[in-house]
Amino acid sequence: MPKIVDHDERRRDIAHAVLRVIARDGVRGADLRTVARDAGWSTGVISHYFGDKQGLLVGALREAAEAVADRMRAISRLGDSAGRVHALLEAGMPLDEERAATCRIFYHFSSDGVSDPAFRGELANYYSWWRGAVATAIEDAQPAGLFQGHDPVELAESLVALAEGLGIQSLFDPDAMPPARLRDRLSGMIIQLQTSESQQVDHV
Amino acid sequence: MPKIVDHDERRRDIAHAVLRVIARDGVRGADLRTVARDAGWSTGVISHYFGDKQGLLVGALREAAEAVADRMRAISRLGDSAGRVHALLEAGMPLDEERAATCRIFYHFSSDGVSDPAFRGELANYYSWWRGAVATAIEDAQPAGLFQGHDPVELAESLVALAEGLGIQSLFDPDAMPPARLRDRLSGMIIQLQTSESQQVDHV
Repeated sequence: MPKIVDHDERRRDIAHAVLRVIARDGVRGADLRTVARDAGWSTGVISHYFGDKQGLLVGALREAAEAVADRMRAISRLGDSAGRVHALLEAGMPLDEERAATCRIFYHFSSDGVSDPAFRGELANYYSWWRGAVATAIEDAQPAGLFQGHDPVELAESLVALAEGLGIQSLFDPDAMPPARLRDRLSGMIIQLQTSESQQVDHV
Repeated sequence: MPKIVDHDERRRDIAHAVLRVIARDGVRGADLRTVARDAGWSTGVISHYFGDKQGLLVGALREAAEAVADRMRAISRLGDSAGRVHALLEAGMPLDEERAATCRIFYHFSSDGVSDPAFRGELANYYSWWRGAVATAIEDAQPAGLFQGHDPVELAESLVALAEGLGIQSLFDPDAMPPARLRDRLSGMIIQLQTSESQQVDHV
């Protein structure tokens, strides 16, 4: 009987190897040969599944996006809505090696994402989903007296932006912005916003 | 008499052409030939000054960073410190074509910036300078009763992150996050923070 190969699982294994290599060596280090060595397959097998380096990175991007989405979906089922706001935001931040690799591959494609409609759509969907999940959690928290006077959609845009922007500074400058500092900035802002009513905004 | 060539000026001219091409066609479109056509020089001249496409993009990155820094330095000399906080943050956001091109080239190098120490240092300096200028403006605004109870350095980290994160979402999803929406989110958060005292933060 021929050996049954689960192609989806093999693709996933290889994509995870790409993310491990990126976490260790950066995106530039994630060439076919290094990934093959890390995944324990020949470069022939790798290129059968992903083609060239670009295909490999796209595969890893999809896998990383899927993993983040899975984690966010799991968080979305939590009961405590204030904790959910917080956990959803942290899920997209580079607070450990895995999430840092995910962020790196996202930014690697950010430039293509701006010019290539397919990538752009993929990344736009990711941010849109993230904002939507946070907005729902904010809305759910409001009956308990939190985030009073804030428009959940608008506040979610700002909080996702805060999380994203903190993550980027951390990737460029991990000494000045280590994970603990990112957590503090995020917590500080959430607490500030959930306990103080929204101010009337006149356009400045 | 031989024609005197201002090499610095020519480099700057070419770098500006790169940014124009990026604004129009994205980073991928900024190859030697297209930039040469746009700058009005031969590809030979372009490659004399910048080498290959990578060199051209690095040159444009430096020029863009310098232009943003110049703008921020000019803003830092403004007297009105609350307005200065706002203007410094907007200076780094993709609110017009020029600033959008600057943001694109920054994100293009973000991946290299994470793995290459030289790039990383350059980008880390940029963010560090931005945070520092905003922190100083916040500190200057506090005697007038604004941003009460906030640590200027910490608040600057959060506000720069907000500005950066809004910009990124806008580049990926300009329909959902157009410039007017970015301005509103930024203004809303600044007004919220400058008029409400900082809450005591217990680590959550």
